[in-house]
Amino acid sequence: MRTKMQPFGDTITLEQARAAIDGALRRIERTERVALDAASNRVLARDVVATADVPPFSRAAMDGYAVRAMDTSGANPVQPVVLTCIEKVFTGQMPTRTVGAGECTEIATGAPMPPGSDAVVMVEQTSADGAHVSVFNAADAGQNIGRKGADIRGGQTVLRAGEMLNASRTGAIAALGAAQVEVYGRPRVAILSTGNEIVDPGRPLLPGQIYDINRFTLTAIVADHGGVPVPHRTATDTMADLERALDESLEDDVLVFSGGTSVGERDLILDALGSRGEVLFHGISVKPGKPTAFGLVNGRPFFGMPGYPSSCLLNAHILLVPALRFIARLPPHALKTITLPLSRRVVSAKDRHQFYTVRVADGMAIPAFKASGDITSMSQADGYFEIAAATDAVEAGELVAVTLF
Amino acid sequence: MRTKMQPFGDTITLEQARAAIDGALRRIERTERVALDAASNRVLARDVVATADVPPFSRAAMDGYAVRAMDTSGANPVQPVVLTCIEKVFTGQMPTRTVGAGECTEIATGAPMPPGSDAVVMVEQTSADGAHVSVFNAADAGQNIGRKGADIRGGQTVLRAGEMLNASRTGAIAALGAAQVEVYGRPRVAILSTGNEIVDPGRPLLPGQIYDINRFTLTAIVADHGGVPVPHRTATDTMADLERALDESLEDDVLVFSGGTSVGERDLILDALGSRGEVLFHGISVKPGKPTAFGLVNGRPFFGMPGYPSSCLLNAHILLVPALRFIARLPPHALKTITLPLSRRVVSAKDRHQFYTVRVADGMAIPAFKASGDITSMSQADGYFEIAAATDAVEAGELVAVTLF
Repeated sequence: MRTKMQPFGDTITLEQARAAIDGALRRIERTERVALDAASNRVLARDVVATADVPPFSRAAMDGYAVRAMDTSGANPVQPVVLTCIEKVFTGQMPTRTVGAGECTEIATGAPMPPGSDAVVMVEQTSADGAHVSVFNAADAGQNIGRKGADIRGGQTVLRAGEMLNASRTGAIAALGAAQVEVYGRPRVAILSTGNEIVDPGRPLLPGQIYDINRFTLTAIVADHGGVPVPHRTATDTMADLERALDESLEDDVLVFSGGTSVGERDLILDALGSRGEVLFHGISVKPGKPTAFGLVNGRPFFGMPGYPSSCLLNAHILLVPALRFIARLPPHALKTITLPLSRRVVSAKDRHQFYTVRVADGMAIPAFKASGDITSMSQADGYFEIAAATDAVEAGELVAVTLF
Repeated sequence: MRTKMQPFGDTITLEQARAAIDGALRRIERTERVALDAASNRVLARDVVATADVPPFSRAAMDGYAVRAMDTSGANPVQPVVLTCIEKVFTGQMPTRTVGAGECTEIATGAPMPPGSDAVVMVEQTSADGAHVSVFNAADAGQNIGRKGADIRGGQTVLRAGEMLNASRTGAIAALGAAQVEVYGRPRVAILSTGNEIVDPGRPLLPGQIYDINRFTLTAIVADHGGVPVPHRTATDTMADLERALDESLEDDVLVFSGGTSVGERDLILDALGSRGEVLFHGISVKPGKPTAFGLVNGRPFFGMPGYPSSCLLNAHILLVPALRFIARLPPHALKTITLPLSRRVVSAKDRHQFYTVRVADGMAIPAFKASGDITSMSQADGYFEIAAATDAVEAGELVAVTLF
């Protein structure tokens, strides 16, 4: 246990912090094969090249009759052309007969076109009497046919490595007959709360103890942004426990420890981090989030987040989410911003870039921030706006750009 | 197998279809308890009421010294007040001594305030020499303290039933010590492709057969919007198979069958649906999606989707997603719309409301639609714009509102 408390050293700006993080990140290289029905929202690790045409055969695009277009020349409702139906082809069946002059084949949407035919007349433009089919409209060659290879040509690159799969892209892979697909692994994110006073929810609380919050907020945010949250058991404020935690995280791609906004405890994490890796920065001139630290442990990014739940979560939104999405090869989070008048005056921290949580109601941005430790105000917040370091206060009625969570 | 093909009956408008669906839906009532670390994005089924104060005790909000504010009156860097440190309190510990006149207790952020003290002087405003602590700034009573119950008061309703949980809300529940939470069940959505020609990806394709696509696109979209996709094995175009499929879906909350845009096959599904439930509509004057059907089976919504993959998926975006989110009690999908010039002229279907897929590139909306059966054009699309039934064509350069997927 530390006995000497130390004040903060120099802080860096938010831009410097972002640059330091960006410079230290590497995109994930690990790949895995997943079942196609679990592949949506994953990132493709290899180009998908068609091994065959889609559709694999020319097929009817309408229910009706497969005809030789030339045979229907001049057909109209008053003087229909009458053809002889020689066969009926349903989906999943192959036609057995060639359509000759004056002949047609009844065909269902999706069924293979019979040889000899070059058009489909839709059923609405016909009338059948036994094998005699009256065609009321002249057909153009090729009409109502889905041509072999019209959707995808064999050999064609259908999707490229790095594309994020979605509903339609998994569909395109299914069309090629692949039941599995190779995707990039999701980054495993070690999540750990530190602090002697931290107790898991569900257990009784002794005097001086509080429940763990950050493990749950961080788990939720990591899962929402392409990571696999890997909760680790809470560490006490001892070097031994912190070093053990770092050693137990060797399988994880990203480390996110939270705990203790105090300089003392933070130094302990920095000491542990220093003994296993490298501290790139400690202290950002933002509010909340001043004590945030960042470094590398065996080349893996380490985020030392503030212990205060709302500070931890806001810094996760601001710093961790973009980093995690980059590592996971996901496109940047599409932030939604709306401009609203502020409902009341807000005073900002001097010389610190401030993120201020707000609720959105009655067409206004209503400050939701109570105190750094509070999670409830954050839980009712819809987003945040930013106050530049040089700005001391934002007046009631001033327009602010609210970034929605 | 049907032998008589029938043309479509009357179609209804998109607005009528939406009204019919809206009128038939019921929000899910089933609830379940889930672990808190799996609760994000779920919908709370009961109000969350605090059983105790958060924080559960008054605590230091800074590293420093717990003092009696009155003792520091007049302190300044030139003439500091010197106090005697009587104890050191770390987080997770209870103070054992009362701070008396001229005394202070060294305290860590988050540690319980000792009796007698009413303020914390941050360590940066002090200097220690053994037990003698020089205080360089006068403290105000209450400063740097996180008061018992300041975040949440015991008995307070923290979250209300019906709210969707997110990172900060799961954090608020953790703060109260709950390890589990009661949420509404996620709707189970039976997904089934029909068609004699449909083969599962991973299996060999025989002549006349094609791979199932809709099961995968529907699975992805259902999972993205709060449902549990329950794939059922593909049904052939027989009444027996379709009725079996309906009977095997009794545990599911929503049924989404796709297959056969042909009138013949569709009638078969309608017959099966009619024998087990009620058809509310069949045929919407939209493109794509004309053959879409909707009904109720034992009070559960049944969507009969077009078999064409791109039509099926677009109708899932337009009709299924809003319905599923309503049933799941999720807020409406936040659609993002951007206005762009169209890159080339597009001709629209007469008298049908059309949804036209586009790619977004070079500041333009580039039509991506190739043909109804195509999935690749859809997989490259970024969204769609709508063409009203009364409009025949949209010219190159005209501005269109693109709804992004």
